[in-house]
Order: sequence, then structure tokens, then C-alpha cells
Amino acid sequence: MLVVHVFVQVKTGKIDAFTTATLENARSSLAEPGIARFDVLQQADDPSAFILVEAYRSPHDAVLHKETRHYQVWRDTVADMMAVPRTSVKYSGIFPDEKEW
Amino acid sequence: MLVVHVFVQVKTGKIDAFTTATLENARSSLAEPGIARFDVLQQADDPSAFILVEAYRSPHDAVLHKETRHYQVWRDTVADMMAVPRTSVKYSGIFPDEKEW
Repeated sequence: MLVVHVFVQVKTGKIDAFTTATLENARSSLAEPGIARFDVLQQADDPSAFILVEAYRSPHDAVLHKETRHYQVWRDTVADMMAVPRTSVKYSGIFPDEKEW
Repeated sequence: MLVVHVFVQVKTGKIDAFTTATLENARSSLAEPGIARFDVLQQADDPSAFILVEAYRSPHDAVLHKETRHYQVWRDTVADMMAVPRTSVKYSGIFPDEKEW
């Protein structure tokens, strides 16, 4: 399992709009066959800090995700809501087993 | 959902031993009623960097976890395997809905 953590720092005053757009994208992403999970986390001590936890069944599924309409709409919608450019880190999911994600 | 990311940097030569102990702890932790998930992630470009992703149904469940035998065995087993003290960050899981974790 390829797990990508996407870190987003949202501008003050844009948290609600970012949340709305991101939940819409998360719901659509979860319907992609190559996506096992698409969690949205908000940092407890900094509500402007978010992580998108994207679990892909293969690296190719991560490529396919970026070709979807819902991803592109999200990317364009939130572009001006970010305080700094977003960053990401890739992980290999070693637990649970592949089929349990 | 309270989601805790625990960051661990493992000493060179201790990766296999850390993985074994951590998978044992993850399996037992997942059997706790207050734990919805207990993922183990290994950083793609740095195999000595791990994140434990612990999803608790309530803050009290995080307290109960630390009282379990399997947590305490893991804590003591891996204490000398870490290159630096581990750190953690707390998040609120805002997607998916509580029952979907």
C-alpha cells in the first residue's frame, strides 16, 4: 500500500471553505477503485493545519487520481486558500495487510 | 476520532527488530475496543523512519491503551532501538464519519 501524507497549511479565514472543498474531494476520491482510504485530519493544536492521508493500492492509482475531475476541481479551488505550498511524504503501509485497508 | 501520529526514527541495524515488535503491538492494539485503527507506515525514502497512526474512539481510549500489557512490552522493547526520542502530533479525524473508521 502506498500511503501519501499531504500537509496543508490553510490561510486564516479560509478554514471552512477549505474543509468544504476537501470533504467533497475526499468523498469522490474514496469511490476510485485504486483508493483504499482518503482521510482528512485537522491538527488538534492548530486548526489551520491539515493532513490528507491518501492510501493507494498501487503507484499507478496515484497517477490516475490526479487525472480525475474531482481532484482537478479541488486543486484549483483550494489553490488560493493555502498559506504556503503544500508538501507531501510517501510511506509504505506495512500494517495492516493489503486487504485490510 | 482522535488520531495520533507517532514518529519514530530507528537506529541503523534495528529496523527488523523494531518492525517485529511494532507489528506485534499493532495486532494487539487493534483488538482494543477503543482503537479503530493502528497502522504502521515506513517512509519510502528513509526506511528507518516510521509513523504509527493510532485512531482512538475517545481520548480516554488513548489513556487505556497505555495501560495495556502489549503497549508496555512494546515501549520497553523498543526503547533502545530509537535514534532519537519519539514525538507525536494529535489530530481530529474529520473524514470519514466516525462509524467508518
